[in-house]
Amino acid sequence: MKKLKVVILGATGMVGQRFVQLLAEHPWFEIASLTASDRSAGKPYAEACTWRQDTDMPESVKSMIVQPSEPNVEGSVAFSGLDAGVAGEVELAFAAAGYGVVSNAKNHRMAADVPLLVPEINPDHIDIIPIQQKNRGWNTGFIVTNPNCVAVPMAMALGPLHKRWGVEKVFVVTMQALSGAGYPGHAALDIIDNVIPFIGGEEPKVEVESNKILGTMANNSFVHADFRTSAMVNRVAVIDGHMLSLSIAFKQKPSVDEVKQTLREFTSEPQQLQLPSAPIPPIVVRDEDNRPQPRLDRNTGNSMGVSIGRVRECPLFDIKMTVLGHNTIRGAAGAAILNAELLKAKGYLD
Amino acid sequence: MKKLKVVILGATGMVGQRFVQLLAEHPWFEIASLTASDRSAGKPYAEACTWRQDTDMPESVKSMIVQPSEPNVEGSVAFSGLDAGVAGEVELAFAAAGYGVVSNAKNHRMAADVPLLVPEINPDHIDIIPIQQKNRGWNTGFIVTNPNCVAVPMAMALGPLHKRWGVEKVFVVTMQALSGAGYPGHAALDIIDNVIPFIGGEEPKVEVESNKILGTMANNSFVHADFRTSAMVNRVAVIDGHMLSLSIAFKQKPSVDEVKQTLREFTSEPQQLQLPSAPIPPIVVRDEDNRPQPRLDRNTGNSMGVSIGRVRECPLFDIKMTVLGHNTIRGAAGAAILNAELLKAKGYLD
Amino acid sequence: MKKLKVVILGATGMVGQRFVQLLAEHPWFEIASLTASDRSAGKPYAEACTWRQDTDMPESVKSMIVQPSEPNVEGSVAFSGLDAGVAGEVELAFAAAGYGVVSNAKNHRMAADVPLLVPEINPDHIDIIPIQQKNRGWNTGFIVTNPNCVAVPMAMALGPLHKRWGVEKVFVVTMQALSGAGYPGHAALDIIDNVIPFIGGEEPKVEVESNKILGTMANNSFVHADFRTSAMVNRVAVIDGHMLSLSIAFKQKPSVDEVKQTLREFTSEPQQLQLPSAPIPPIVVRDEDNRPQPRLDRNTGNSMGVSIGRVRECPLFDIKMTVLGHNTIRGAAGAAILNAELLKAKGYLD
Amino acid sequence: MKKLKVVILGATGMVGQRFVQLLAEHPWFEIASLTASDRSAGKPYAEACTWRQDTDMPESVKSMIVQPSEPNVEGSVAFSGLDAGVAGEVELAFAAAGYGVVSNAKNHRMAADVPLLVPEINPDHIDIIPIQQKNRGWNTGFIVTNPNCVAVPMAMALGPLHKRWGVEKVFVVTMQALSGAGYPGHAALDIIDNVIPFIGGEEPKVEVESNKILGTMANNSFVHADFRTSAMVNRVAVIDGHMLSLSIAFKQKPSVDEVKQTLREFTSEPQQLQLPSAPIPPIVVRDEDNRPQPRLDRNTGNSMGVSIGRVRECPLFDIKMTVLGHNTIRGAAGAAILNAELLKAKGYLD
Repeated sequence: MKKLKVVILGATGMVGQRFVQLLAEHPWFEIASLTASDRSAGKPYAEACTWRQDTDMPESVKSMIVQPSEPNVEGSVAFSGLDAGVAGEVELAFAAAGYGVVSNAKNHRMAADVPLLVPEINPDHIDIIPIQQKNRGWNTGFIVTNPNCVAVPMAMALGPLHKRWGVEKVFVVTMQALSGAGYPGHAALDIIDNVIPFIGGEEPKVEVESNKILGTMANNSFVHADFRTSAMVNRVAVIDGHMLSLSIAFKQKPSVDEVKQTLREFTSEPQQLQLPSAPIPPIVVRDEDNRPQPRLDRNTGNSMGVSIGRVRECPLFDIKMTVLGHNTIRGAAGAAILNAELLKAKGYLD
Repeated sequence: MKKLKVVILGATGMVGQRFVQLLAEHPWFEIASLTASDRSAGKPYAEACTWRQDTDMPESVKSMIVQPSEPNVEGSVAFSGLDAGVAGEVELAFAAAGYGVVSNAKNHRMAADVPLLVPEINPDHIDIIPIQQKNRGWNTGFIVTNPNCVAVPMAMALGPLHKRWGVEKVFVVTMQALSGAGYPGHAALDIIDNVIPFIGGEEPKVEVESNKILGTMANNSFVHADFRTSAMVNRVAVIDGHMLSLSIAFKQKPSVDEVKQTLREFTSEPQQLQLPSAPIPPIVVRDEDNRPQPRLDRNTGNSMGVSIGRVRECPLFDIKMTVLGHNTIRGAAGAAILNAELLKAKGYLD
Repeated sequence: MKKLKVVILGATGMVGQRFVQLLAEHPWFEIASLTASDRSAGKPYAEACTWRQDTDMPESVKSMIVQPSEPNVEGSVAFSGLDAGVAGEVELAFAAAGYGVVSNAKNHRMAADVPLLVPEINPDHIDIIPIQQKNRGWNTGFIVTNPNCVAVPMAMALGPLHKRWGVEKVFVVTMQALSGAGYPGHAALDIIDNVIPFIGGEEPKVEVESNKILGTMANNSFVHADFRTSAMVNRVAVIDGHMLSLSIAFKQKPSVDEVKQTLREFTSEPQQLQLPSAPIPPIVVRDEDNRPQPRLDRNTGNSMGVSIGRVRECPLFDIKMTVLGHNTIRGAAGAAILNAELLKAKGYLD
Repeated sequence: MKKLKVVILGATGMVGQRFVQLLAEHPWFEIASLTASDRSAGKPYAEACTWRQDTDMPESVKSMIVQPSEPNVEGSVAFSGLDAGVAGEVELAFAAAGYGVVSNAKNHRMAADVPLLVPEINPDHIDIIPIQQKNRGWNTGFIVTNPNCVAVPMAMALGPLHKRWGVEKVFVVTMQALSGAGYPGHAALDIIDNVIPFIGGEEPKVEVESNKILGTMANNSFVHADFRTSAMVNRVAVIDGHMLSLSIAFKQKPSVDEVKQTLREFTSEPQQLQLPSAPIPPIVVRDEDNRPQPRLDRNTGNSMGVSIGRVRECPLFDIKMTVLGHNTIRGAAGAAILNAELLKAKGYLD
C-alpha cells in the first residue's frame, strides 16, 4: 500500500511534536509537510522546533523546511495541532482547498455538521461528512475533530454503559497532567507540593462534548445524548495522564459486576478493522484497590488504552469509578491519528 | 492563670509530634508527660523520637523521659495521638482513671455518647459529657474526639450552609496530602509524577462523620443530620493540605452570593470565646479563579482556618466549591487542641 | 527609636515581595515607597503585584500606590530587588540622589569601591563607603551589595575557616532551588522528575564573589583572597534552599573536629550588635549523617542561619562538607536587610 | 540459535523485576527459573511479586512457580538481583554448582579473581575466569560482577579518556535517582521538595570501583589504575537516572575539543560484536548548555547509553563535565545482561 502524504499543521507545538513522533513510522501515513507560524517558517524543523519529547527527533523530519500554514503544501490529509487562536480559520481554508482536516483543536468540535469522533464510540458519525461538504460547498475536503483530553477517556468509559443502561447524570472531578497545558504551561513554583483547582475553559468543554459523542445520527444530523454532566477540574503535579473520579446515574440500574463485564468485553470498529493505533483491548478494567495510576497505567495499549478501576456502588448515584487516559496521546495527537485511520479504512481519505 | 498539666499519648508519632510542637508554647496547657510504645519508654524524648517537623524540637521536651501509655502519668488532660490499633483501650483506661481524653483517633468517634467535635460547628455536643460519664461510671474522666482530617474542613464548609438551607446530598472528591498517611507513609516511587486513587478506610469515614457533626442534641442524645454523602478519595504529591472538590444539593436553594456571604460572615463560639487556637475568621472565602491551593493557603489562620473558593452553580446539584484545610493541624492535632480549649473555657477541664 | 523610611525598588518581583514580607514588621525600618516598572506604576500595590508568598500580603502595603523607579520617592534607604537589566543605572541614580542603596542585584557587586557584604564575614568592608562617595562625588548616597545566593552560604562556611587555616582551593557543586530563578522561572514540565545541569551566568559569579568577600581592606581598597574555586551548578525540584557539596584544600591542615568546632563557635559582629535579623548562631553544624536537607533546615535561624553537615575528610583535598542556606532570604532579601541593619548600627544610615 | 536457559535469583525485587522485564524477549536467553526468598517460594510469580514496572508483567512468567535460591534450578546462567545480605553465599553456591553467575550485587566485586566488568571498558578482564575457577576449584561455574550504578557511567566516561591522557584525580558529586534505593526506598515525605546528602555505603564504592575497572590485567591478576577519587553523593526527587558532576585531572592535558571528540568516537567490543544490548553509540556527547537531563536522556540507547554534556575547562583540574546513565538499566540489570552477552559471545557460556 502506498502511504498517504500528510501535512502537520502547527508542527512545532506540543501536540504537533506528538504528531511528528507518532507519524514518523506510521504504516499508512507519511509526513510530507510541516507548517508553523511565520516566525518558524523557512527554517529546517530541527532548528525551528525545541523538541521536548523523551525520544529523539526522527531523522526523517530534521531537515524538512517548515512552511507557513497555508493550503498549498504537499499532502492530502492535514493533522492540526494548531492553537485555538488560529485553528478556526486555517482549518477552514485547508478543508476548502480539498484537504481532509483531522483536528485536535476545539474550534469546530461542536459545529452541527462536524464529527466529534471517538472511533470506538461513534464511528458512524463520520457519515455526516457528505452533508458537511454539501453545506459548505467543499469537494473533497472536510473537517473531523477529536474531543478534549478529558472528554476522550470519559466518553470511552460512558459509551459502552450508555448503550446498555442509559446514562442520566455524571459527576466528574479531574486530576489533570501538566502536559495538558502545553509548553511552558505551569511554572514549577506553582505546582510542586500543590494542586491548582482551575483550568481555564475546561469545565464547559467536559460538560458538553460527551453528549455529542454519545449522541446518535438521525436524518443527517446529530442528536445529542440527553444526560447532564457536572465537572470540577484540577491540575496536579503529574507529567502525563489525566485521572477522573466519576459517578454515574443510569436510567436502568446495572450491578457493579455488569458494569465491569461490559467494559471488559467492549470492543468496537477500530479493533475489528485492525486500525494500526487501535488499542486491544480498548478498555482495561483493573480489580486492584489502588489502580489505575497515571505513572503505571498511562502507557496501557501503547498509550491509546483507557484504564478503569475502583468500580463500585455510589451512595448517591449508581456507580463510581476511576478512569485514566494518556492526555497527549489518547486525548490528543493519538486520538486524531486513530480518527484518520478510521477515515482511511472507510474510504474517506485517499 | 495557672497552666493545666497535660499528657501526650503516642508522643513520638506524627500526630504526637504535632501535639508537642503546638503545645510547647501554649498559653493554657503545659506538657507534663509524654507516652509512647514500650520500645520508646524509658528514653529521653530527644532520643526516642525521630523528629520530622520543620521547626526544631522544643528545648523543654528534649530531656523528658518517655513513659508507657498507662494512666498513672502526670497531667489531667490526655491528648491522644495514638494509632487506632491501641487507642481504643488506652483511651478508655485514661478516661476511667479520671483524665479528660481529647483524642484524634477514630475508635470512639461514632460512639453514641462521645462528642465528635468541631468547636465552630457543634460546640453544644460537649453537653453529652455528663451522660457519657454516667453511662460509663466515670467520675471526672471523659472522651472527646475530633473528626477525620477530611471531615473537619468538610464540616466547616457545610455547617453554616446546613443551618440556613439544609444540606441534602454531598458529592466530595478529595486530593489528600502525604502527611495524612503518617510516617513513612507512601514510598516516593509510588507518588512522584502520580496520583493514587485509594486510601484504605477513608471513604466510609468521610461518608458518615459529617452527619454526626452537623446533627443535633435532643433528649441527651445525638440526632444525626440526614443528608447523604458520596466520597471518592485520592492521594496526591502534596506535603500538607487536603483539598476537596465538593458539590452540594440543598433543601432550599441558595444563590452563589448567599453562600459566599454566609461563609464569609460565619463566626462561632471559639471566636467569641477567643480561644487561643481559634482562627479569625474561621473560613476564608476566596474570589480568585484558581484558589485555594494547598501550598499557598494551608497556613491560613495559623493553619487552623479553612479556605473556600470556586463557589459556583452546579449543573446537577446546587453549589460546587473547592475546600482546603491543613490536614495535620486543622484536621488532627490542632483540632484536638481547639477541642480542649473549648472544654477548658466551658469548665470541663481543670 | 523612630523608624527609618525605606523604599523598595522593584517591589512587585520575587525579591521585592520578600523585601515587603520581611520589612512589613521590621523594628528599625518602615516601608515608605514601593517602585516598579512603568507598567505597574500608578496602581495600588495589591493590584500591581501578583503576590506569591505563602503568607498574606501585609495590610499596610495593599493600598500604597506603586511609583516609577525614580529617585524622588519618599525614603532615605533604597532596597533594590531590581532585575540586572535595569538595576545598574537605577541604583546609580538613587545613590547620586543621596539614598543609601542596599542592593541584591549583581551589577555593582564586583566594583572596586562597592562592598560585597556578608555582615558576619566582612563587616569592615563597609569602611570603603567614604572612598566610594569621594570617587563618585556622592554626598550621603552610596551602594552596598550582597552576594549571589550561592556565594552567601559558601562565604559563611569558608570565612571562619579561611581566617584560621587559609583556604587554597574550593570545589563546589550546587543543587539549587527553583525560587532562585524568579517567577515564572522553570516550567514544571522541565523539572519534575528531573535535574537541569545549568544556570545561566551562575558559575562565574560563584567562582569570583567569595574571593572578594573573604578578602581584606588595605589602603582603602579591597585585596581579594587568592584561593581558586571551581563551581558546577544544578537546578533541582526544590522550592527554597540552595545546597552545596563542597570540598576545600587549606594552606594549613585542620582536623575534622577542629573544623566543626570552629564553625560551631563562630559568632560575629551582627550577633554581638544584636542586629534584628542576625541568626544566633550564624552557623548550625549538624552531626547526623543525612543533614542538612533543604526542607528541614532552610528555616534555621528564621531562614537566616546557614546549616553545615557531613564534615569529613576528602581523599583529594582536605575537608568535604554539605552547606545549606535559604536562597531567597539568607541569599537575597534577608541578606540585604542584614546589610542595612549593620549599616544602621554603624551610623551609615539615618 | 538455541536460547540459553537462565535463572533469575531474587526475581521479585526491583533489580530482579528489571531482569524479568529485559530478558522476557531476549534473543539469546530464555527465563527458565525464578527464585526468591522462602516467603515467596512455591507461589506463581504473578502472585509472589508486586510488579512495579511501567510495562505489564510478561505473560510468559506469570505462572512460573517461584523457587528457593538453591543451586538445583533449571538453567545454566544465573542472573543475580539478590540483596547483599544473602548474595555472597548464594552466588558462591551457584558458581560451585556449575552456573555462570552474572551478579549485580556488591559482595564479590572487589575480589582479586572476579571481573568487575563494563564490556565497553575492560572486556579483557573476563580472561581472569580460568584463574578464578582454578583458585576456587570450580569446573564450569564462575562469578562475574557489574559495578555500582554510579561507577558504571563514571567508568564509561573515564575509560576512553584514561587510555589517551591518564586520569590522575576525579571529583564527583552525584544526584541519584530514587529507584537506586530499591522499593520502598525513600518515604515521599522525605524527598519531595528536598535533597538528601547521604546514601549509606555509596561513597566508598564510587571511590574504589573505577580503579579496578580502568585497571589492567597482568600476569593473571588485576592491576588497579592509580588515580584518586573523591565522591559526594546526594539523593534527589528523580525516578530513574543518576547524574554526575565530574571534574578530572589528567596526566597529560587534553583540550575540551579533544575530550569531546574522543568520547564521541568511542566504540568498543560490545558494539563490534553487535551484542543485543550494546548501545550504539555507547556515549552520546551533547553540545547544548543544559543537557544531559535525567528525564530527557535516561532512555538514550535503549537506556544503555551514557550521555555526557557540559564538557568544559575546570579552574582547578582540567576538564569538567556532566554524566548521566540509567541507574536500574545501564547501572544494574542491563549492565549484567550486557556482561552475559559478552561472556556468551566469547564462549564462556553455553
